Amino acid sequence: MTTTRDLQTPALLIERAAMQRNLATMSAALPGPRLRPHVKAHKCTALARLQSESGHASFTCATIREVEGMAAAGLGADLLLANEVLDARRLGRVVESGARVTAAIDSEATARAAADGGVREVVVDVNVGLPRCGCSPGDAGRLADLARSLGLEVRGVMGYEGHVMLVPDVEDRRKQTEECMTRLLAAHADVGGEVVSAAGTGTYAVNSWANEVQAGSYVLMDTAYGALGDLPFEQALFVLGTVISRTPPADGIPGWAVADVGLKSLGMDHGNPTVPGGVVWFCADEHVVWQPDDFDSVRLGDRVRVLPAHIDPTIALHERMWVVDGDEVVDELPVDLRGW
Amino acid sequence: MTTTRDLQTPALLIERAAMQRNLATMSAALPGPRLRPHVKAHKCTALARLQSESGHASFTCATIREVEGMAAAGLGADLLLANEVLDARRLGRVVESGARVTAAIDSEATARAAADGGVREVVVDVNVGLPRCGCSPGDAGRLADLARSLGLEVRGVMGYEGHVMLVPDVEDRRKQTEECMTRLLAAHADVGGEVVSAAGTGTYAVNSWANEVQAGSYVLMDTAYGALGDLPFEQALFVLGTVISRTPPADGIPGWAVADVGLKSLGMDHGNPTVPGGVVWFCADEHVVWQPDDFDSVRLGDRVRVLPAHIDPTIALHERMWVVDGDEVVDELPVDLRGW
Repeated sequence: MTTTRDLQTPALLIERAAMQRNLATMSAALPGPRLRPHVKAHKCTALARLQSESGHASFTCATIREVEGMAAAGLGADLLLANEVLDARRLGRVVESGARVTAAIDSEATARAAADGGVREVVVDVNVGLPRCGCSPGDAGRLADLARSLGLEVRGVMGYEGHVMLVPDVEDRRKQTEECMTRLLAAHADVGGEVVSAAGTGTYAVNSWANEVQAGSYVLMDTAYGALGDLPFEQALFVLGTVISRTPPADGIPGWAVADVGLKSLGMDHGNPTVPGGVVWFCADEHVVWQPDDFDSVRLGDRVRVLPAHIDPTIALHERMWVVDGDEVVDELPVDLRGW
Repeated sequence: MTTTRDLQTPALLIERAAMQRNLATMSAALPGPRLRPHVKAHKCTALARLQSESGHASFTCATIREVEGMAAAGLGADLLLANEVLDARRLGRVVESGARVTAAIDSEATARAAADGGVREVVVDVNVGLPRCGCSPGDAGRLADLARSLGLEVRGVMGYEGHVMLVPDVEDRRKQTEECMTRLLAAHADVGGEVVSAAGTGTYAVNSWANEVQAGSYVLMDTAYGALGDLPFEQALFVLGTVISRTPPADGIPGWAVADVGLKSLGMDHGNPTVPGGVVWFCADEHVVWQPDDFDSVRLGDRVRVLPAHIDPTIALHERMWVVDGDEVVDELPVDLRGW
């Protein structure tokens, strides 16, 4: 039996039971095509296959590499690249290989790139309030007409209310989501097609306007989403570290401990990770430094589970994830969709 | 001829002439063994080879993987693992292969791990003021004695004044460095040995107490170090992106542009990257959103060079770096020391 004690740290762990409960909870709430899981969260075809086995055959991708990898893994029944590209030739080759690929467009240039590259289907990406990609709602109909004139099939619209995901109050989140979706539905009225794709883990339960939800983080969760308090998903991802140094309290300074989990194994854009039973002071390239509530309980060589604040960029730093059942290692999942 | 136009974005670029000037400037200031370049900054044996060709035969590493990779690349003449490990067996195998490996120790457990794992040489890691690893200066002599009793050769001390690296005022930085090095020299008096290893890119010029400097960032630089204003090194590393979306000014909101450089291609612990000629608003997984000073000058499909705030975790997200001379791609350097 392989245990977590045998793993080189830092190592990404997935607690199997928690992941399975997250998969089941989401599939019950949004069965089948109501969920289009976003693979950018985990960048892992093996985990996407578990989502497929939970009934979701259509997926969302953020990069061309993710589209290629999903198609090569036999998960290419309906892949949406929810992002703009100005050179779609690699996507065209995926279409030629037999997968179904739909690209987002938000400009004449991205529509032409899709057509020139051999993509046959698109959705119009609409700015619903997050200042990022997406055309203005009023311009969506014109873009759809242009796309059709280029021979593209326009499947509908997408619009990501990303700025609403972490709004603390759930009623406030619902209300802001409604404002965003009002813009998206106005665009949809001009564009046509069957797809109204939006939302994420933070808004999946309050977005009743989109007909498919692009959530990804729900499977593994992170402390930023966990802090909302109203999501029914459990933290299933941890970075396992080893306590490599400890400095006892002295001269009025509290004792601190150091584990080998740092900036090279943690996405830091949402801030410091969490070490249960302590307060994190800071991270360095290969270190997390924290003040344990009970200093004497932390010993050199102990294994600790560090909770990342944002899973997407955390996972992108690792080659593999280890599925565990407590301390037993039951599976290894390659993070095979990294890069571009 | 391959040009940057042929690269899939995001892509890491190294401007060759700037890197060469940085190498030459540092080697003139700290020739030969006075510099022990830290490979954690670039995680690239090809770049370490350029440092070796600049006269530096000894290197600093932060992970066992870096030690193994450097030795396998024939750059193992004198490798210091400036970090604590509680299982040194992989290091022992590198020693057996013929490389010279010195490990840092800051506790009885790490000393025993070194001896048990087959490491023959150590330095005592001393806490000089950064609350991270390192024993107290007063405990260093005892640890050295213990290490010698275990049959280890104690080469000296190390102590990293990491909290001083980005002190804005150079005189203040020098003064704080002196305080740190006073602690290190006190420990050294008790420990003995020839090595007094410390410092980094921010303090290389003001640390006149260490006899070897562990700088790494100087070769490629980042905006955090650049902001100090007194370092003679040039920004040589960029993340090349493509402008994939732009939203013109409307209703009093300024226009913004989006390039495909985001949290998956940028270390974010030092904050947002810089886009010259504009103000960065935020980053998402695969996007940087910024407000160009001259909106009309930014066109869809343009290539932009994004400057990371912290290079170490930025490079760890990439498989390779492209060496360029302007727009010409002249070399490809694998980032081959990633992982653990």
